[in-house]
Amino acid sequence: MSELKHNRVYNFNAGPAAVPLEVLERVQEQWFNFQGSGMNLMEMSHRSKEFDAVHNETIARVKSLLNLGDEYHVLFLQGGASTQFGMLPMNFLNKDQTADYINTGTWSTKAIKEAQKFGNVNVAFDGNTVDFMRLPTQDELQLTEDAAYVHVTSNNTIKGTQFFEFPKVDAPLIADMSSDILSHTMDASQFSMIYAGAQKNLGPSGVTLVILRDDFYATAHDAVTTMLSYKTHVDKNSLYNTPPTFAIYLMGEVLKWVEEKGGVAGMEQRNRAKADMLYGFFEENPEFFRCPVSPESRSWMNVCFRLPTEELEGRLVNEGKAAGFIGLKGHRSVGGLRISMYNANGVESVEAVINFMKGFMKRNG
Amino acid sequence: MSELKHNRVYNFNAGPAAVPLEVLERVQEQWFNFQGSGMNLMEMSHRSKEFDAVHNETIARVKSLLNLGDEYHVLFLQGGASTQFGMLPMNFLNKDQTADYINTGTWSTKAIKEAQKFGNVNVAFDGNTVDFMRLPTQDELQLTEDAAYVHVTSNNTIKGTQFFEFPKVDAPLIADMSSDILSHTMDASQFSMIYAGAQKNLGPSGVTLVILRDDFYATAHDAVTTMLSYKTHVDKNSLYNTPPTFAIYLMGEVLKWVEEKGGVAGMEQRNRAKADMLYGFFEENPEFFRCPVSPESRSWMNVCFRLPTEELEGRLVNEGKAAGFIGLKGHRSVGGLRISMYNANGVESVEAVINFMKGFMKRNG
Repeated sequence: MSELKHNRVYNFNAGPAAVPLEVLERVQEQWFNFQGSGMNLMEMSHRSKEFDAVHNETIARVKSLLNLGDEYHVLFLQGGASTQFGMLPMNFLNKDQTADYINTGTWSTKAIKEAQKFGNVNVAFDGNTVDFMRLPTQDELQLTEDAAYVHVTSNNTIKGTQFFEFPKVDAPLIADMSSDILSHTMDASQFSMIYAGAQKNLGPSGVTLVILRDDFYATAHDAVTTMLSYKTHVDKNSLYNTPPTFAIYLMGEVLKWVEEKGGVAGMEQRNRAKADMLYGFFEENPEFFRCPVSPESRSWMNVCFRLPTEELEGRLVNEGKAAGFIGLKGHRSVGGLRISMYNANGVESVEAVINFMKGFMKRNG
Repeated sequence: MSELKHNRVYNFNAGPAAVPLEVLERVQEQWFNFQGSGMNLMEMSHRSKEFDAVHNETIARVKSLLNLGDEYHVLFLQGGASTQFGMLPMNFLNKDQTADYINTGTWSTKAIKEAQKFGNVNVAFDGNTVDFMRLPTQDELQLTEDAAYVHVTSNNTIKGTQFFEFPKVDAPLIADMSSDILSHTMDASQFSMIYAGAQKNLGPSGVTLVILRDDFYATAHDAVTTMLSYKTHVDKNSLYNTPPTFAIYLMGEVLKWVEEKGGVAGMEQRNRAKADMLYGFFEENPEFFRCPVSPESRSWMNVCFRLPTEELEGRLVNEGKAAGFIGLKGHRSVGGLRISMYNANGVESVEAVINFMKGFMKRNG
């Protein structure tokens, strides 16, 4: 099936997604005996010296990779971005306040629906008007004066759009970066809060990275329950209760790998090369491949495209799978095809899938 | 340091705790290539055929091991038992209702504090009156007529007490079984809800098992946020959002191992043998070892004990560690010593630590 090491496949899953092979190899080496402890990391107390080092090094790597100063708190929570959709307004939006949400797809829509339970939501841009095929320009944003915050989804896995420049706003800017964190250089200091489920660019599902700037955090009110108060987790350095220790350890190993590959700038270089190659290939073959997303809004992470017929799309998914290219099917809500290529996917994986698609086109074009 | 396979140690950690070596070995064999997929399980979609099978088999194993009928829902949530402390009253306790809580230690106390945010709490037994050194008798319980539910913590990791027979109550009975689920046979049908963080008897931290009986579940109201409504997770079979896939897979492997070892009856046999051996050793040497917990309430999972002096206790922890016996220190809130021996700990590990303690006693007695 595959000529790759360990009989691995080319993994283009949208999430949970590929983990760098070097990371899996290192974790496997420590599997029965983490750093000479005689235990797997998951068998250790979250209050042990060993885990404490893993935990705090992982926080330090997040801060270093994103160039965050001491004014930022880094948390590892549970429940995914979906839990943050509720926690954010629960902690930061009062009944008499308005939050601005930029609606660029399925996940923004869910975040909006959840925030409406807690206060007023102004949809500053409604992507439905452009079928979510492009992101808003700065001029199009209808922002509220004195908004509690402005929420944006940085990358849209289902529609295949991505922000590279973020909206300029006066209110605190919050981003759900679940699907593109650490994928390109950007000024993180423009954000009051960033959150990201780990299962695309940071490791396994089951841990959510939350970054809070202190001035914004200072405005948090108590949530209805202890575990949904950011205060609970900031006060205890994410150790109020037992955290998902193994998932945090894996995130730390992924971050170490990012550092070794040149940090965020290194990831940007890889990701730009992959995107140029893949979108370029589609543009060179417009009679067979079509990308419906506006060129200026196209995601480097999730490349959505169509073939001349749905029958051909189905055939490409199946033949791709047989040839060791996994995850080519578009999200069930939109159909078509999708190649998700997060940080872990090397340039060679994109070269390989392009070669496969060239052959497919010849056989079917 | 150790003569065990893979240079492993005897792991008596209170949680996160030891995972059966056979489970770790099997997961390691599938590490780069789960069932021929060419991916680690954590790199697969939670909507893939492969994960779907893991997910539903794990649910089936929970039901089979606990003899649960179709009237029970089995959920895999995030956030640990601490999140359940809030979710339970948020979904099942109204402002004008009273819930009965049996306070048998630190975790019960936390559950009570959280429930008080949502409705009235009646402490049906206050373990503070007996310094938490024993559990209540049936006669001592001050139950409320028409209570919304009665909450009990089945095993108390810090104080070292455990229920083997549960209170007889008219209201729906709820148990936090985080630290002793599947450790001895019992009639699970007496419970309207059971919840358990995985990191003692079920696998790694980061997944919480929640079991809900349909008649009780039918009385749930909507929670303040989507992710804290049981309804969200029951409706979607715990796949409303991305679940902690790797942690669920590991739980499934632990459950398979329990089945192979004779199911819950097999675990009971092992655990009874370990407890008899260890408490028996202490009783044979009362001049050196003292267990402050009332004999009828002693936990099979967490054996708390004292030596003649704190200095000796510290020495035993350190010499034990050097000899490959990890986790002998009591919880920081109570001091003393503790041997946690969940399902994963074999009888031979308890024999080994007793032998070590015999030598220690000779050298210091």
